[in-house]
Amino acid sequence: MSSQPLRIVVIGGSAAGPKAAAKARRMDEHADITLIQREPDLSMASCGFPYYVGGTFDDRNLLVCTPAGIVRDPGFYGKAKRIKALVRTEAMRIDRRAKTVTYQDLSNEERHTIPYDRLVIATGATPVCPSAPGFELEGVLTLHSMADADALRAVRDEKTATKAVVVGGGLIGFEVCEALRLAGIETTVIEKTPQILPFLDPDLAKLVERHVRAHGPDIIVGNGVAEFLAEDGRLSAVKLDNGTELPCQVAVVAVGVRPNVALAQAAGIEIGPAGGIRVNENMQTSDPDVYAVGDCVECTSLISGQQVRAPYGDLANLQGRVAGQNVIREGSARFPGITQTGICKIFDYTVGFTGLSERQAREAGFADIETATISGLDIPVFMGGKLLISKLVAERESGRILGFQCIGPGDVSKRVATVAMAIRGKLTVEDMVNADLPYAPPYSLALDHVIVSAQVMENKLKGRMQGLSASEVKRRVDSGADCFILDTRSPKEFEETRLGIGETLIPLGALRDRLNELPQDKDREIILFCKISLRGYEGAAILNAHGWRNVKVMEGGIVAWPFAKEK
Amino acid sequence: MSSQPLRIVVIGGSAAGPKAAAKARRMDEHADITLIQREPDLSMASCGFPYYVGGTFDDRNLLVCTPAGIVRDPGFYGKAKRIKALVRTEAMRIDRRAKTVTYQDLSNEERHTIPYDRLVIATGATPVCPSAPGFELEGVLTLHSMADADALRAVRDEKTATKAVVVGGGLIGFEVCEALRLAGIETTVIEKTPQILPFLDPDLAKLVERHVRAHGPDIIVGNGVAEFLAEDGRLSAVKLDNGTELPCQVAVVAVGVRPNVALAQAAGIEIGPAGGIRVNENMQTSDPDVYAVGDCVECTSLISGQQVRAPYGDLANLQGRVAGQNVIREGSARFPGITQTGICKIFDYTVGFTGLSERQAREAGFADIETATISGLDIPVFMGGKLLISKLVAERESGRILGFQCIGPGDVSKRVATVAMAIRGKLTVEDMVNADLPYAPPYSLALDHVIVSAQVMENKLKGRMQGLSASEVKRRVDSGADCFILDTRSPKEFEETRLGIGETLIPLGALRDRLNELPQDKDREIILFCKISLRGYEGAAILNAHGWRNVKVMEGGIVAWPFAKEK
Repeated sequence: MSSQPLRIVVIGGSAAGPKAAAKARRMDEHADITLIQREPDLSMASCGFPYYVGGTFDDRNLLVCTPAGIVRDPGFYGKAKRIKALVRTEAMRIDRRAKTVTYQDLSNEERHTIPYDRLVIATGATPVCPSAPGFELEGVLTLHSMADADALRAVRDEKTATKAVVVGGGLIGFEVCEALRLAGIETTVIEKTPQILPFLDPDLAKLVERHVRAHGPDIIVGNGVAEFLAEDGRLSAVKLDNGTELPCQVAVVAVGVRPNVALAQAAGIEIGPAGGIRVNENMQTSDPDVYAVGDCVECTSLISGQQVRAPYGDLANLQGRVAGQNVIREGSARFPGITQTGICKIFDYTVGFTGLSERQAREAGFADIETATISGLDIPVFMGGKLLISKLVAERESGRILGFQCIGPGDVSKRVATVAMAIRGKLTVEDMVNADLPYAPPYSLALDHVIVSAQVMENKLKGRMQGLSASEVKRRVDSGADCFILDTRSPKEFEETRLGIGETLIPLGALRDRLNELPQDKDREIILFCKISLRGYEGAAILNAHGWRNVKVMEGGIVAWPFAKEK
Repeated sequence: MSSQPLRIVVIGGSAAGPKAAAKARRMDEHADITLIQREPDLSMASCGFPYYVGGTFDDRNLLVCTPAGIVRDPGFYGKAKRIKALVRTEAMRIDRRAKTVTYQDLSNEERHTIPYDRLVIATGATPVCPSAPGFELEGVLTLHSMADADALRAVRDEKTATKAVVVGGGLIGFEVCEALRLAGIETTVIEKTPQILPFLDPDLAKLVERHVRAHGPDIIVGNGVAEFLAEDGRLSAVKLDNGTELPCQVAVVAVGVRPNVALAQAAGIEIGPAGGIRVNENMQTSDPDVYAVGDCVECTSLISGQQVRAPYGDLANLQGRVAGQNVIREGSARFPGITQTGICKIFDYTVGFTGLSERQAREAGFADIETATISGLDIPVFMGGKLLISKLVAERESGRILGFQCIGPGDVSKRVATVAMAIRGKLTVEDMVNADLPYAPPYSLALDHVIVSAQVMENKLKGRMQGLSASEVKRRVDSGADCFILDTRSPKEFEETRLGIGETLIPLGALRDRLNELPQDKDREIILFCKISLRGYEGAAILNAHGWRNVKVMEGGIVAWPFAKEK
């Protein structure tokens, strides 16, 4: 360490920046650390905004407090961390040759220039604005800053709105949708692409769609915003590409974010192929004295090796901690990359994913993959088990797990975290089939959902089961394909609910005695299912053993059927 | 496959046996499969017994039903699985040369002999009986069979008991303790060794002890049963080794199980060093045509490589599935071993572990290890976060994670499952420090508990922090050691609760200005802590930077202090 204190400047005070600054302080008590933040608040729990807006809690201070209840303001940073935090202050220019940052105090427009030995850029991201006219109207909002959260919370508190439109069917869009619904506002989510929640494969996304509709909000897919319409200078409706007008007093735009790279780019720092600041695994930019962290950077996917953007709060913190170490001791910490993991509460469902969906895996160049979709309870019936529906994606040759999506009212979060760690460890289906997980009835079935998921995948990889997705079955039915559809549940279950797609009911226990009721052309396609398709799978094994050669199981069973049912 | 149907006999119908039989059926529709079960029930959810006893649910049938609500009786096995299930039938002898099993029908004592091509032994385990006299008295029970569950449930329903003693402070002991407490019975748990829950290290075990006491039951450690005392031929009290008599109408013995190996041993099948039937990774015994699964076998620890016993329901199912494949297609499936993972609900706490505790790691020969104990919330304060306290164990040189214990009212199950998968993948602390886990406020902090745990471990491994356990601090205090103890919380927090072990209060934010209040002998030991010891750690970094050379952090902070507090 030099006898002269190291001068560290951090641009950005929301998540990654404060983390980098705080870690640098813990690494070096004597460094001069300055944090430049454009907004008035520091280190905001921005992922908590939807829950403040929706009324899960009412004390706004909780968004900017330490767990011990102290507001993280400049005074706190000064006293507890000896970090000079400048708020309402914007970094205007980085001079890499002089190693200075010029910033402007937004309260008085004064400009100052400070030198740095190491710089950390944590400029974050900005919500993407649709090109539709009227975006600037009063009533059109985003949910990105504390000011946005305040504005949307006011919509709840002042009961000014009865109808709202959420533009964008991603994670944030649905968090906002729920918050608005909880405020008693009639809400419609519109999504330009044909599918909500792009990290899910279509059948799971459709199941979430049904769940949201059951809670009130409407969803319109395949239709973007043409225009925000005004009355008396205020938003009055959202007009869609197809001409539909949706009257509303509030529209929240959540169509994603783009990384704030202008400051870095103007300073000649390299931008990567995904549009974020390029960093190495030390979070170092193309300038070795300049680091970048958080939503403004791009990351390496540990699965595909590709550069990807992943603007998530947890990654911002992880990266900030790595940069905080490296600004003090170059090369001392690594952030090797991400698996792309996310989660979201949508009414009574949790929706989570880690790694690649089937679509993403194919797009990333994994040609020979297999998937397994299953349904099941998270804990036993007698403990009040709730449904989980998931899809596992694996590389066929190696058996390596590439991705996992899971939705439902059950404990999705645990299963996604478990598989995220399996993917991190490059585990294969065979590793996961025999995983030794914590089992007791309050927490899991004897064979946990993720283990059953791997077991079904193994059965498919070993050729013991051929599967079809609900969509594939629906397509066959709609096109009048010549297949025989077999429901293997009990007559009682059939009375309670059924698909009504021309299926024949033969309960599994009677199947061996009623094989003569099946098509005697042994090459005819037979599709079996039950409630979750375990009995369907057992039935398929029986048919295969009796010479039928084209036997398939509809994966996930009735509970994973995202389309209309007869009853 | 041969044209003659393969003859498979499975001895044991509780968990592993039925799983092996069912998997074998799915692998081979034409095999002759016979299941021999001594008890009247088949495929019982025995891990659910405590919840039936405690009144979580009242329908006994739920313990022996499929998720679709069908009782798994011989009729079900016959129709749905074409498995001949013989109940109340005991296997008496295995003749490996003749390849036959002789069994006895317990209803009429008739003996029969059936041939096998492949045999699966799933004879389970039996509760260990203490050598104390009176074990056979009415009122002394175990909780192992359906009959046991019925007997204990009757204690609840008939309200015959007001006081109970649970003998054994392990997982089952505490599940039973809670069930009895929920039945309104005054309960005492006695444990012969000095500590409850032997898979935890002492400080965490003590925290659980406090939690149990707060819910009513008493715990007595270091004291075994000398005698079960009778009055009118019925249990009246439990007399302890130290002479204490605990009056009670019910005593439940839960001091562990021993594997039922007599049948296998009599047939000349090899028993392993841990006392279970020895199997290879195909679950094959020393006789290649004989497999063994479930509580009667011993397993290989994937961490230590040692042979261990792990009588858990989930492993029984995993092993059963592997044997079910191998009896049909030899060598087609593997069960490489276990990491030893378990979990238990104890009132409002969950207690979970995976891998080795510090003590177990040292016993297994890992000499150079490090531990990290932390406290923290599972989700943010504003979402109603609950406490987690955990201890991570890692190999110092390689950084490999060896074990994780976690307790508290928070979501322990998710964290244990996550680390179990990390251990399975042989991940290191560096891998876990940057894990990409699902983050949203309803499910996690931005930096999840397991990540913070790995970060603290990393800080210790890199020499940035020296830690002391609460016990170590207590020992210093009790022995009058010359150390300076520093509480870095706020005065308000100090007023609300404090240890009262001679500590000095200097809030973190004031520490830099009040260094003169610290011992000026820079070699004097200074021990810092706060509520969870994050501010303690930050304070330690400040002191180290100002020249103090013997600065330590009390890991886990006040919330992990298992001893009495001043207030």
